[in-house]
Amino acid sequence: MKKNYLMTPGPTPVPPQALLAMAEPIIHHRTPEFMEIFREVCELLKFVFQTQNDVITLTSSGTGAMEAAVANLLSPGDKAICVQGGKFGERWTELCKAYGVTPVIINVEWGKAVDPKAIEAELKKDASIQAVFTTLCETSTGVLTDIKAIAQVTKAHNAVIAVDAISGLGAEEIKTDEWGIDVVVSGSQKGLMIPPGLAFISLSKKAWEKVEKSKSPRYYLSLKKAKKAIDATDTPFTPAISLVIALRETLRMMKKEGLDVIFNRHKILALATREAMEAMGLKLFAPTAPSNGVTAVSLPEGIDGEKLVKHMRDKYGVGIAGGQAELKGKVIRIAHMGYITDTDILMTIAVLGMALAEMGFRGEPGVGVEAAEEVLLEGRDRNPVESA
Amino acid sequence: MKKNYLMTPGPTPVPPQALLAMAEPIIHHRTPEFMEIFREVCELLKFVFQTQNDVITLTSSGTGAMEAAVANLLSPGDKAICVQGGKFGERWTELCKAYGVTPVIINVEWGKAVDPKAIEAELKKDASIQAVFTTLCETSTGVLTDIKAIAQVTKAHNAVIAVDAISGLGAEEIKTDEWGIDVVVSGSQKGLMIPPGLAFISLSKKAWEKVEKSKSPRYYLSLKKAKKAIDATDTPFTPAISLVIALRETLRMMKKEGLDVIFNRHKILALATREAMEAMGLKLFAPTAPSNGVTAVSLPEGIDGEKLVKHMRDKYGVGIAGGQAELKGKVIRIAHMGYITDTDILMTIAVLGMALAEMGFRGEPGVGVEAAEEVLLEGRDRNPVESA
Repeated sequence: MKKNYLMTPGPTPVPPQALLAMAEPIIHHRTPEFMEIFREVCELLKFVFQTQNDVITLTSSGTGAMEAAVANLLSPGDKAICVQGGKFGERWTELCKAYGVTPVIINVEWGKAVDPKAIEAELKKDASIQAVFTTLCETSTGVLTDIKAIAQVTKAHNAVIAVDAISGLGAEEIKTDEWGIDVVVSGSQKGLMIPPGLAFISLSKKAWEKVEKSKSPRYYLSLKKAKKAIDATDTPFTPAISLVIALRETLRMMKKEGLDVIFNRHKILALATREAMEAMGLKLFAPTAPSNGVTAVSLPEGIDGEKLVKHMRDKYGVGIAGGQAELKGKVIRIAHMGYITDTDILMTIAVLGMALAEMGFRGEPGVGVEAAEEVLLEGRDRNPVESA
Repeated sequence: MKKNYLMTPGPTPVPPQALLAMAEPIIHHRTPEFMEIFREVCELLKFVFQTQNDVITLTSSGTGAMEAAVANLLSPGDKAICVQGGKFGERWTELCKAYGVTPVIINVEWGKAVDPKAIEAELKKDASIQAVFTTLCETSTGVLTDIKAIAQVTKAHNAVIAVDAISGLGAEEIKTDEWGIDVVVSGSQKGLMIPPGLAFISLSKKAWEKVEKSKSPRYYLSLKKAKKAIDATDTPFTPAISLVIALRETLRMMKKEGLDVIFNRHKILALATREAMEAMGLKLFAPTAPSNGVTAVSLPEGIDGEKLVKHMRDKYGVGIAGGQAELKGKVIRIAHMGYITDTDILMTIAVLGMALAEMGFRGEPGVGVEAAEEVLLEGRDRNPVESA
């Protein structure tokens, strides 16, 4: 007998009520029944995005919404800052190039967060820059970006700030309206806790003004088409109906739990994971700017990350992620994002300890779990919302 | 108590085994388990598409795959024939315009099929035409296009033929390789019997040669990225995992039933529907080129199609479709596509008769069902495959 656990940074586990909602007979999208569901989903998305602006739902992976940002806001020949500190930061650059937009690349060492002053310097140097593309949580490195500070420095300029919050939304604080973030992009299979297939994008007034001027080609990803449809509680093309219905379930859960409680839960789980890793003698890959959604851990000499991931999956049923691109084999990534609780993290840390021991790296048994337990016990006491 | 039935041309009903597959705990897409599923799906898609070429799976609605055809095969300034005989034919024109491609529009009266000779004439007139965009089954009118003949006239020219088979694949015969169709586009929520959210596209060698030359921007819908990934049984971006898993279930059903039996089933159900409509004193909207996937029916004077659709849905739980665009209120559309059997059609015809009577149009009771029964009984006897 083996039980399977998903501790990867997307897809993340789907709660049973969302899974079961997808097993209900399919309904048509142009019915009062679906429109009522979609209306509620649109409202709850605004709550999660912390915005008064419409949140547009696209049937695509998160990358589709990133492309929508580039293709709807910019025109060939425009310039845009792309913050590159991992695989997903690089995607902004690739998207800009695909649309003839000149990327002003700010390279950041993998595992570090970008300095908002570096962005400010570029914006001051070139007033023609139209957008700043950045990433809330860089899934490939586990780094959290200081979006609030970047929004602050961008505000005074002609550029809009567009944030890839695919990994992160629902796990990390992101106050779209209060911080003045013009474009927030997300996906369904991370903090929002449903399977992949839906992507989301919200736009500020400043962003919609750029949409009016943009000359890039688009049709399926046209935000004007989507906006026109959403005003009638509709989508321009047949949406992924069953995913929208599942999303209502998880958004209702989020509304009930409350954003503060959700963010605090992620914070405590992330801290517990980090303390456990250090107690076990492992090094954090991004110690200076760790995200609350995923923790990247450098592996000791002689331990192959690919083999470790495979071993944990095949022997224990625990799915964690390995490293991507230049980090392949060198790090593992443990997600604590979405439908994840204390029990999942404790179990994962214990299994990691056993798997490492089996591969020849043996610290003192139980120290990881012990360190995590301490954080979890203290975290509960420290959290005024949860203990209320 | 009310039971709900979906007799609309997309979404169509989803078989329980596919619904239940979506309720299983989500798995990660970069695992041997998912790769094995995706490998099987790719193979079975080739079977259903009747091609030896790869069938690329995109996470989008069908329109995403139509856009992929335009954006990956053509460049701004190119010319392409767009056959316009309904709402979905018009979509090709809109897509061409969005990408700076000049559409050579062949307008066809709604309810009629295009004459392949009209396409041939345009191709002979202008050798620079790069593509012929057409529609297998025009969902808005219920018209079936003679794709075999159009492929035949296109073959001798530089242009590729690209077919929107979103409505139709799995319901109508379409021999991709044998007929020489360069591009076939489809979607998941019609003949393939799963919820919306996946789109498909197959390309011939001649089509891939155009992809090499195309200069239009694309990233999420890049077919070269998808092809590179599929060669490693992968997708370039996180796929809609649960839909892919559901698709394996329905494709296995289709393989087991066999394409000939499937097409024959649709043919008989369509014929039964048409004969029932005529027996009831209703007029077929597309009598000269009716599709086997959906039947459009003109409504008698004084019967509002919108009200009829609402009445059948609200009182009887039977969802049929109304008219789109210029046909709004004037026709109803009854689908017999995908997971639909004799019982569904008999019930729908009976309910339509009752609903029409309640709205003031009363033919002889039972004549529709009687006419359908005759076709169904005869159809069984006539069909050597099914009776074997």
